[in-house]
Amino acid sequence: MEYIKTIYLKDDKLFILDQRLLPNEEKYIELKDEKDVYNAIKNLAIRGAPAIGICASYGVYISLLKYNYKNFTEFKTKSKEVINFIGSSRPTAYNLFYCLKRIENIINSTNEINEAINLIKSEAIKIHNEDLEKSEKIGENGLLILPNNPRIISHCNAGGLATGGGGTSLSIIYKAKEKNKNIFVYVDETRPLLQGSRLTAWELKKQNIPYQVITDNTAAFLMKMGFVDLILVGADRIAKNGDFANKIGTYSLAVNAHYHGIPFYTAAPISTFDFNIENGNQIPIEQRDKFEVIKFSDSIVAPIDSDVYNPAFDITPHNLITGIITEFGIIYPPFYENISNLIEKVWIK
Amino acid sequence: MEYIKTIYLKDDKLFILDQRLLPNEEKYIELKDEKDVYNAIKNLAIRGAPAIGICASYGVYISLLKYNYKNFTEFKTKSKEVINFIGSSRPTAYNLFYCLKRIENIINSTNEINEAINLIKSEAIKIHNEDLEKSEKIGENGLLILPNNPRIISHCNAGGLATGGGGTSLSIIYKAKEKNKNIFVYVDETRPLLQGSRLTAWELKKQNIPYQVITDNTAAFLMKMGFVDLILVGADRIAKNGDFANKIGTYSLAVNAHYHGIPFYTAAPISTFDFNIENGNQIPIEQRDKFEVIKFSDSIVAPIDSDVYNPAFDITPHNLITGIITEFGIIYPPFYENISNLIEKVWIK
Repeated sequence: MEYIKTIYLKDDKLFILDQRLLPNEEKYIELKDEKDVYNAIKNLAIRGAPAIGICASYGVYISLLKYNYKNFTEFKTKSKEVINFIGSSRPTAYNLFYCLKRIENIINSTNEINEAINLIKSEAIKIHNEDLEKSEKIGENGLLILPNNPRIISHCNAGGLATGGGGTSLSIIYKAKEKNKNIFVYVDETRPLLQGSRLTAWELKKQNIPYQVITDNTAAFLMKMGFVDLILVGADRIAKNGDFANKIGTYSLAVNAHYHGIPFYTAAPISTFDFNIENGNQIPIEQRDKFEVIKFSDSIVAPIDSDVYNPAFDITPHNLITGIITEFGIIYPPFYENISNLIEKVWIK
Repeated sequence: MEYIKTIYLKDDKLFILDQRLLPNEEKYIELKDEKDVYNAIKNLAIRGAPAIGICASYGVYISLLKYNYKNFTEFKTKSKEVINFIGSSRPTAYNLFYCLKRIENIINSTNEINEAINLIKSEAIKIHNEDLEKSEKIGENGLLILPNNPRIISHCNAGGLATGGGGTSLSIIYKAKEKNKNIFVYVDETRPLLQGSRLTAWELKKQNIPYQVITDNTAAFLMKMGFVDLILVGADRIAKNGDFANKIGTYSLAVNAHYHGIPFYTAAPISTFDFNIENGNQIPIEQRDKFEVIKFSDSIVAPIDSDVYNPAFDITPHNLITGIITEFGIIYPPFYENISNLIEKVWIK
């Protein structure tokens, strides 16, 4: 299966598919420096936790190429500045910080400017390639939990557009398609920015996977009518106890899945786990602009001076999760114990 | 408190505020015949279960004025035709059928054309005035269930725009405001047609009631964080056992309220009860056009050839309801018994 090229480096130039224009236009834009990278992430030209991490890694590389340095100390100061600046673009998705930490570690492994720059480049490419592999493995591991002829609710976009490969939760759907499984996807449109209807539906269409777009309001009623076998979402940050942040609306799906006895899975690479925090209460939640809600394209859809509460993410507690599908296998409850065990086995210090 | 004039008859001409243009433009349009009335209801220039009933009643009157009749038999045939046609505009809200039945009964009470036409007019005006009174009483009765400083989630629009008075569920909020209660409303935007952000926020703004607009995705997370004391919604049709149809998304709110132990009330006049049906499974649910979901104003927000599942309503079962606030008082569980008892007392045969 051929996946979307969401991000690529060519002749030391960084290009991304501008996701703000989808599904109407497929246009690549060049990100020329750390400001471009920061804005592209902040304004959602690129989004999705793993894709943000990849973009940030390449972003440090192309940004540091632009400057001249008197010595390694100056280079190191600049690199820290660039890393911190790009890292301040969005607060919730952990992969951003995970990837920037890897880039920082690589810089700390040398004291020579050219070598550092070459190492950053190869680390960024490695992060990208690893992510492609992780997508494949998450997809394969996820096949185990699919019933026959599954009817799946997806939320936001955790597909090729959100990663370096086929996606996290959507990768499972793509693997099922490759195996000729009979799948059907209900695509939550995912207000306010419609990553479901704009991006997930666009991906599924390209891969010839049958789907229906629904308003987020419709998901619970579909569950009640017995139309749903499984909920499958991505994750932006997972705490040590399994609580996780994901696109606003995920928590409502989890509560409804629990009430209706429907399995609820999240799919994410290990780079999404934040081992500095014990539970979901410690995950910072990004608050976004009110005009995402009260304007729509050029239309005003609420009194213009309305107050708005617009968190980009919510927290789903581990007790509502059936399992977490990672590239190393599926983690089941008790999550705190099983997450610790898996991490001890696989974590690259 | 002064309410919005949603619908009025002047010199035998019928005018409605075109709700499709809100919050950007306050424009009244004239409905000249049964076709206009049918289209205004079907295309949501006027909406809200009680308001639809009032509009349909006046609609029969102004439509029947336009024709010449050879005799009463011809008049009666025409009136049946007009009533059936207007009644076919939308299938779910029961008030439409309740009001048209009253108009039909009035016609059956005479055999003289002019008298019939006069009786229809006064019955339509009576229906309108009664609705204003019902709004007041629902508002007053609802005050009993408000805690101190209540933070309320509202869904869709069950305000002045949806009735002949201050509303059903919003009427309670207006009464609380009159009593100087400290209230705060979270306004579910209510996809796909945004009756929450376009209409409810507009009404609350006019009445100086503090509110925040939220995407429907955000309601459950607010409940989890302890920000919500009460859910208050309207109803389009209520079955004998208390199951009720309301705007899509209501069911999800009810499940989430149940999970979080938050009281969940619906407010509606007795004309919303359909005593022909035992439970919610028998309520017909309107399916609406896919472009309500995949187009937004002039923007395309999903692949244009996407399949869409777009029910306008869902069914909330009685076991998730704390109480039903009517003009005659609040109905509590056991609903089947208590609905029957109330109806026996108050129903006008």
